[in-house]
Amino acid sequence: MRFYDCKTAPSPRRVRIFLAEKGIEIETVQVDLGAGEQFSEAFRKVNPDCVVPALELDDGSCISEVLAICQYIEETHPEPALMGGTAEKRARVSMWNAKVEQQGLWAMADAFRNSAKGLAGRAVTGLEAYPQIPELAERGRARVLQFFGRLDAHLGNNEFLAGESFSMADITALVFVDFARWIKIHVPDNASNLARWHVVVSKRPSAAA
Amino acid sequence: MRFYDCKTAPSPRRVRIFLAEKGIEIETVQVDLGAGEQFSEAFRKVNPDCVVPALELDDGSCISEVLAICQYIEETHPEPALMGGTAEKRARVSMWNAKVEQQGLWAMADAFRNSAKGLAGRAVTGLEAYPQIPELAERGRARVLQFFGRLDAHLGNNEFLAGESFSMADITALVFVDFARWIKIHVPDNASNLARWHVVVSKRPSAAA
Repeated sequence: MRFYDCKTAPSPRRVRIFLAEKGIEIETVQVDLGAGEQFSEAFRKVNPDCVVPALELDDGSCISEVLAICQYIEETHPEPALMGGTAEKRARVSMWNAKVEQQGLWAMADAFRNSAKGLAGRAVTGLEAYPQIPELAERGRARVLQFFGRLDAHLGNNEFLAGESFSMADITALVFVDFARWIKIHVPDNASNLARWHVVVSKRPSAAA
Repeated sequence: MRFYDCKTAPSPRRVRIFLAEKGIEIETVQVDLGAGEQFSEAFRKVNPDCVVPALELDDGSCISEVLAICQYIEETHPEPALMGGTAEKRARVSMWNAKVEQQGLWAMADAFRNSAKGLAGRAVTGLEAYPQIPELAERGRARVLQFFGRLDAHLGNNEFLAGESFSMADITALVFVDFARWIKIHVPDNASNLARWHVVVSKRPSAAA
């Protein structure tokens, strides 16, 4: 297997943390997104969507999309389980992972990609050039703050996002919260449950990945 | 189990098709989105995100998010497999499902929710009121057309989205293509692979769900 990564980007960090939790080391290729290496002919053969992360299997075929990559790793390296130990728990991990993606991470990406100077004309990941929409950046910021409130309320009754064990959903949420700092959005002072959880998950050695 | 549905909406249709393929009938409650029933006190106890679909389990707890619901059904009713039969096939189904969601379905939702007259002030699903962004509706339309092209190219080499068998990824793509008609975007005349696939999947009895 070969893992296509970009050390500075949030999406592949979800896979890096996942691998670190499993204790797996894989041959890793850094793709320099800043230099536009994702658009090179060589990388387009790996992933025609021109995004990282991507996982090349031993037969040369490629799996992209964070969830698909992590699912494949979970099945081929089951311990420790990061996607739940029963059908119901797996559904809860999947549900919270989807909520954090849709209400948190994609809103944060809207905020960042539609405002960052370096991404003018590249407001959507991938090959096509789309102009930034400043109103969407504003909406994204508002949604990130709103979702912080929801996470805080949920974590008042739950040790981790999908219940009592650390899971893929916590990885997605950690990457989301840390990504929000890029546009200077921090966990609000009154979000004590979210702050408590963030300290706990950030102390895990995998968080350095 | 109890399934919270809205017969006219695209997201719960993904679950309805999934259930029809499995041959499962579940007690179903219609939530009238047009009348704002998703915001009622009663439904907020089922799903505080105020969206359908949702699946209430026998212990009264609730699973929301299409992928999590389908995953739960797949595990509790494995035949016929709709999410792949091996770790690698499951990863491919998951990858294509994610691609169709992010590049197709969410772009289509952007196009629709930011332009439909009835959704003024409700441009994002859920409880919060966000104004429509006409530029985002335009970007959504452009992305939908672009993704039609990608699907067409992919289906030139693949019978179904994730390879040789019908899967969850095809269900997501069928709902996406049919949803696009709501804003008068149809499969382009030159997209013959996509058109071929659309005829095949639409003929399955489950497509009527």
